[in-house]
Amino acid sequence: MNQNLSEKVIKRLTLYHFILLECEQSGLEYVSSPRIAELLNIDNSQVRKDIKMVNNVGKCKIGYEVKKLRRSIEETLGFKKPKNAFIIGAGNIGTALIKYEDLKDYGLNILALFDNNPLKIGMMINSKEVFHFSELPNLVQKLGVDIAILTVPKEVAQNCADMLVEAGIKYIWNFTPRVLKVKKNVRVWNENLIGNFLQFVAEDKVVDDDRD
Amino acid sequence: MNQNLSEKVIKRLTLYHFILLECEQSGLEYVSSPRIAELLNIDNSQVRKDIKMVNNVGKCKIGYEVKKLRRSIEETLGFKKPKNAFIIGAGNIGTALIKYEDLKDYGLNILALFDNNPLKIGMMINSKEVFHFSELPNLVQKLGVDIAILTVPKEVAQNCADMLVEAGIKYIWNFTPRVLKVKKNVRVWNENLIGNFLQFVAEDKVVDDDRD
Repeated sequence: MNQNLSEKVIKRLTLYHFILLECEQSGLEYVSSPRIAELLNIDNSQVRKDIKMVNNVGKCKIGYEVKKLRRSIEETLGFKKPKNAFIIGAGNIGTALIKYEDLKDYGLNILALFDNNPLKIGMMINSKEVFHFSELPNLVQKLGVDIAILTVPKEVAQNCADMLVEAGIKYIWNFTPRVLKVKKNVRVWNENLIGNFLQFVAEDKVVDDDRD
Repeated sequence: MNQNLSEKVIKRLTLYHFILLECEQSGLEYVSSPRIAELLNIDNSQVRKDIKMVNNVGKCKIGYEVKKLRRSIEETLGFKKPKNAFIIGAGNIGTALIKYEDLKDYGLNILALFDNNPLKIGMMINSKEVFHFSELPNLVQKLGVDIAILTVPKEVAQNCADMLVEAGIKYIWNFTPRVLKVKKNVRVWNENLIGNFLQFVAEDKVVDDDRD
């Protein structure tokens, strides 16, 4: 990325990208900011502000050029530069992620899965092989992978994280409901589905203006 | 929830809850804010501020009572009040979610799945039945369910969303990479795994202070 974007801006730009792809599929050449705002139930001024950040200016009364805006967002978010990753845990979530083709379109290139269940070793899931954990250090080195997607049971999450760090992994996308202790130079992104669910069903309206 | 909490506070409180559960399992009675801060790689003052919001005060040099703080967070986030939901799409993500037992512990009670594949209808996944889409309106009414978790292919996401709204669903937890058009009185929570991934691998440090 060529600039510092906040988490919320990145999330919104991704949603704009979903909308632009759909516009292109429907043969639309232009889309207006009020239309995008309406679809996402957010302010028009917010949409315009975000899009200004990716250096795109709409035409008065016509809107944004769909293809051009899509490419600007792709460039800004850098998601056409593929990143290689391993999935740790060939269970339900691991399998769901490896079959989730859209992640690939957005630059996540999953090379293999790892598990310790002998019945799973050697299996192919969506054309990707399941290896035994013990092969991890070797394959991290050989393929230069530094992203691991952790989908193991929470009871073994910390042990696995230790092994990942030991093997040279620098980024852990953590799908387990467990906080991981890692060295300072390793980044953990907690997917936190549970936190998302709790936000979603919060009875009171979630405050949008988060200043901390 | 008894107060307006920002998205970020809810997410952090959920992570504190993960840590507290682990403390309890290890037999720890007290935990300090610097310890929590260290595990999450955030500021100690942030932890103290968040915990103050759930009406808990630590003891000088000892820290917070683990069990008491855990209960306060549970009360604040209201996640012991179970919420019934249906999963729409008995594919990989739907199956992964229904087998994800931790969601249940945090109050998400999935009653059934829906699909249109004749081979799947009548199947039991984790003791939950897969019904045909056509049974949705009837079961929404009968069981009073207002949350749907949408995990269908993106090509049919909008059609499914229309059917859900028609059937009386009020909350859609959207796992598809598609922005959904719904009536004003229906809430959509975009899970946006792709946006999360893009944030995570952002080369520059994501700005933490998000004021929009």
